[in-house]
Amino acid sequence: MTYCVGILVDDGVVLVSDSRTNAGIDRVSTFRKLFVFEKPGERVFAMVSAGSLSISQGVVSMLSDEIASGNRELDLNTADSTFNAANMVGQAIRIMHDRHAEHLQEQGIEFDVSFIFAGQVAGGRLRLFQIYAAGNFIEATAETPFFQIGETKYGKPILDRVITPELSLRDAAKCALISFDSTMRSNVSVGPPIDVVSLRRDALRIGFQRRLEEGDAYLDVVRNTWGRALQEAFENRIPDPDFDM
Amino acid sequence: MTYCVGILVDDGVVLVSDSRTNAGIDRVSTFRKLFVFEKPGERVFAMVSAGSLSISQGVVSMLSDEIASGNRELDLNTADSTFNAANMVGQAIRIMHDRHAEHLQEQGIEFDVSFIFAGQVAGGRLRLFQIYAAGNFIEATAETPFFQIGETKYGKPILDRVITPELSLRDAAKCALISFDSTMRSNVSVGPPIDVVSLRRDALRIGFQRRLEEGDAYLDVVRNTWGRALQEAFENRIPDPDFDM
Repeated sequence: MTYCVGILVDDGVVLVSDSRTNAGIDRVSTFRKLFVFEKPGERVFAMVSAGSLSISQGVVSMLSDEIASGNRELDLNTADSTFNAANMVGQAIRIMHDRHAEHLQEQGIEFDVSFIFAGQVAGGRLRLFQIYAAGNFIEATAETPFFQIGETKYGKPILDRVITPELSLRDAAKCALISFDSTMRSNVSVGPPIDVVSLRRDALRIGFQRRLEEGDAYLDVVRNTWGRALQEAFENRIPDPDFDM
Repeated sequence: MTYCVGILVDDGVVLVSDSRTNAGIDRVSTFRKLFVFEKPGERVFAMVSAGSLSISQGVVSMLSDEIASGNRELDLNTADSTFNAANMVGQAIRIMHDRHAEHLQEQGIEFDVSFIFAGQVAGGRLRLFQIYAAGNFIEATAETPFFQIGETKYGKPILDRVITPELSLRDAAKCALISFDSTMRSNVSVGPPIDVVSLRRDALRIGFQRRLEEGDAYLDVVRNTWGRALQEAFENRIPDPDFDM
C-alpha cells in the first residue's frame, strides 16, 4: 500500500510519501515514490505517486527521458506554467494507458495510478494538483489545501482539523507526519522510509528534502507522543457523557 | 453509508450506530440499525448492522418473527449460548442469501451485509461477535476489544489509541462518540441520529439505551471540543521537527 500527502500553505508546498510497495504480504519492497525536477531559479516540480508501481515508474521514466529533449509535449523544461507541466504528466499517464491498460485488463488488473504534483515556473504561481489515472487533474485551493492518495482515510481527521493556509511549512510537515503515524499504526503495509520535500513559494528550487528511515528520531517522537497526547485529550478535554450505563 | 462500533470492556459491551441510509446522495433516509432482544434475567442480545438495508432488515425481521416460535434453528429465545445465538443470526443471513443473492447479482449488486452482535445468556459469558455476509463470525478478545463495520477507517485511530478492557462503559461510549465525530466530519453520509446501547456484564438486560438526535447537547460538546483538543495536542504536545524548510 501507499500513502502520500501534499499540502499547500501560504509559505509553500510540502509533499510526503512512504516508500513501501507490496504485491502480496510476502513481497514488500522499498521504492522511491517521490520525484523532483528542478532548474534552480527557473522552475521546480515535485511529485508523489500511488497505484501500480509499474505505471507510476513508467510515467516518471518517460518524463525523465524527455527532459532536455525539447519535445514540447513532454519535456517539463519547456512547460511555460505548472498547469502545462501537470498536463504533461497527464499526457504521460495516457501514453502508459494506451500501452498497458488493455493488457492489464486481460489479466484482471485495473489501470490504477495517481499523482500529487506541485511546482512553480518563474513568473507563475506555486500550484498543487492531484492527477488522476485518466490524466485529468484538480487543483488545491484555500478551502481544500491538501490532497491525499493511497491509504487516505486513517490519516485524514488530523489533516481536516489542523491544516490551514496560515500554517508554516514546518508545521505542515509535522501535521503530515502525525497523519502518517495514524496511517502506519492502522495499516502495516504503509511504513518508513518516509520521504519529505518542501517547495518554498517563489524560491524556484527544492527547499528541503529528507528521507526518514525506520528508527528516525523524529518519527519515534511522533509515535511515542501522539498516542499519549490523544489519550490525554480524551481523558482531560472531553467531558464525560451523562449516560447512566 | 453506515458506521457502527461495538466495544467489549471488563464491565460490559457498548454498541453505537448511526441511522443514515443512502441510495444515491439525493436519497438519504433515517433507519434504525440497532436492535435489541431481551428476556430480563435470562438473556439479552443487541446488534447493529451495515450493508444493504433490505438484507439487514430482512435478517432482523426473520429473527423477530421467529421469537417465541420455539424453532430451535432461529428462535433467539431457545439459544442456549450467545455463540449459538450468533449462529442463528448467521443462519438467517444465509437464508436471505439463498433468497436474494442471485437476483441481486443479476442487477450487478453485491450481497453485502454485516452485523456486530453482543449478548449474554444466564450461566454464560457476555460475548461480542462480528458476523460476516457468509454467516461466519469472529469474536472480540482482550487483544482486539472492538469491532467496526461500514465506514470504519476515519474513526479507527482514536479507538486504537484509547480502547482497553479496563475502560468504563461510559468511557467506552465517549470514545465511540469521538470516533463517530471523526467519521461524520470526513463522510457526510454518516450522521445522527446516533443510537447508543450498553449491556452491563451479568446484568442480563439492556443497561442503557438512548438515541442522540441532530443537535444533541453531548454530540455538540464532542464536535466543538475534540477538534480544538486535537489542535492543542498538535501545537503543544508534539515538538517541532528540526527541518530547515
